[in-house]
Amino acid sequence: MELLFLGTGSGVPSKGRNVSAIALQLLEERGTTWLFDCGEATQHQILHTSVRPGRIEKIFITHLHGDHIFGLPGLLGSRSFQGGDTPLTVYGPAGIRAFIETALSVSGTHVKYGLHIVEIAEGTVYEDEQFLVTAKRLEHGMPSYGFRIVEKDLPGTLLVDKLRALGVRPGPVYQKIKQGETVILDDGMVIDGREFVGPAKKGRKLAVLGDTRYCDASIELAEEVDVLVHEATFSANEAHLAHDYYHSTTVQAAEVAKRARVKQLILTHISSRYQGEMCDQLVEEAKTIFPNVAIASDFMSFPVARNEK
Amino acid sequence: MELLFLGTGSGVPSKGRNVSAIALQLLEERGTTWLFDCGEATQHQILHTSVRPGRIEKIFITHLHGDHIFGLPGLLGSRSFQGGDTPLTVYGPAGIRAFIETALSVSGTHVKYGLHIVEIAEGTVYEDEQFLVTAKRLEHGMPSYGFRIVEKDLPGTLLVDKLRALGVRPGPVYQKIKQGETVILDDGMVIDGREFVGPAKKGRKLAVLGDTRYCDASIELAEEVDVLVHEATFSANEAHLAHDYYHSTTVQAAEVAKRARVKQLILTHISSRYQGEMCDQLVEEAKTIFPNVAIASDFMSFPVARNEK
Ligand SMILES: [Zn+2]
Ligand SMILES: [Zn+2]
Repeated sequence: MELLFLGTGSGVPSKGRNVSAIALQLLEERGTTWLFDCGEATQHQILHTSVRPGRIEKIFITHLHGDHIFGLPGLLGSRSFQGGDTPLTVYGPAGIRAFIETALSVSGTHVKYGLHIVEIAEGTVYEDEQFLVTAKRLEHGMPSYGFRIVEKDLPGTLLVDKLRALGVRPGPVYQKIKQGETVILDDGMVIDGREFVGPAKKGRKLAVLGDTRYCDASIELAEEVDVLVHEATFSANEAHLAHDYYHSTTVQAAEVAKRARVKQLILTHISSRYQGEMCDQLVEEAKTIFPNVAIASDFMSFPVARNEK
Repeated sequence: MELLFLGTGSGVPSKGRNVSAIALQLLEERGTTWLFDCGEATQHQILHTSVRPGRIEKIFITHLHGDHIFGLPGLLGSRSFQGGDTPLTVYGPAGIRAFIETALSVSGTHVKYGLHIVEIAEGTVYEDEQFLVTAKRLEHGMPSYGFRIVEKDLPGTLLVDKLRALGVRPGPVYQKIKQGETVILDDGMVIDGREFVGPAKKGRKLAVLGDTRYCDASIELAEEVDVLVHEATFSANEAHLAHDYYHSTTVQAAEVAKRARVKQLILTHISSRYQGEMCDQLVEEAKTIFPNVAIASDFMSFPVARNEK
């Protein structure tokens, strides 16, 4: 599991930062990539990475501002042109369907894979046996969502050696033991599954938030996550501007991280007014509130390690 | 007057060529830039040039395929964000309005300049005292237009020294003489304006064509132009593919140039299957039919000199 930042700027592209997009690489976990937002030229950024468009399984859109969605039609079209044939689902606020469908139909783009569009509300956005993705509304003038991505705990591994030492042979019974059940063997031996399974592997938790003012919903979404990705469009001394434009400052992002007791904060959506050393300063500002801060840059990757418990 | 190629690839962006866009720099002529097509990331390409989005006055769209229009919403939005306040007109086939209006409204993009959208048909697309732009339908499976851009002849300069030698003093009468009128001065002297005006400056002519098969309309649009920009998606030996996908080969483009008696042919819309030396070969193919050929590359600029007659 790895976060790969494809676009870390705000509003308009600059030479240093493209507009918003983040890839969540789940290659080990499920052989796919999830995308969060898809600003213009996201497909161009992808050309310089190992991300394969055909492997993109889900795209979560935080909000409909152009710097978060104008790369969608091109990416969806190119994915088909390049032979992508597995289904793809786009999750986003109401309006995302009209945008995608108009762009594809006007341009005569007929994708050759199953394209599903889900207009989201607060609550569960997606769930399977591996992941739960939930959303909450933030404060951005237009509907903007934050996503909480929870990897479910993996059951511990079966302690095969311990079973073999007792003479229990491999077979269907192993499956029951692995699930922690109590089984009685043919010879009358009673096996309590819980004693033959290693510790569960804790799943990882992430929060990837859309553009927003400082708000309680951010804290709820980020509660105790391993990594929080939060916008920081303005420096600490521009709280007024941040408020007026429905954005956050560095220290507001850090305050969310602190209150939510996250492990790591990554700042993104950086205005092009901050260049070079000024970006180090943004990090320093956040560190006055919360220690584990990094600032994203285009093509930065951030591995999300499993928590050994 | 200068053509600046911003995207010279076909279908999908590659590391070497972006999707279609060409800037016609009219800085001397009218202080503005015209754009032909606007594929995704055209605004990103522009960041690396001297083109100023606020100076873009007109955008002509040849057809609605994604690689020719998906950069429009972002460019239109950024132009406003960066302070562009002069009017801008987009000319394109029916459907361009729905595309632009949906993208801007869904994304909450409110541009602060006059944005006009004109859905075009064959015939005159735009005319003023300086330029005449006409369009014809090509053959591309979906409506695709070629544009003929004719700069009107400039009247010759007034031969002031010759007038002064005759004792004719500057005044309103100079304007009449410049227009070639015959005037009678207070002292009875008769001045035939045509004798006091230098030779007219011939205007330049260009043809910028959308994606197309070889067709007669291309030849008509390109008749005796100074520069013809023609697609060459396929090499000479892929005429079958070109036909099936409604595109042209190098030699078909050259045949148009030859029949239309143009001065210069520029090949663009080059498939990413042709790299490096293979592109030189494309030029050689075209040269077997028509001598003055160049192949466009991203950021190539091509000055269009005035014809001294
Ligand atoms: Zn944004
Ligand atoms: Zn094309």
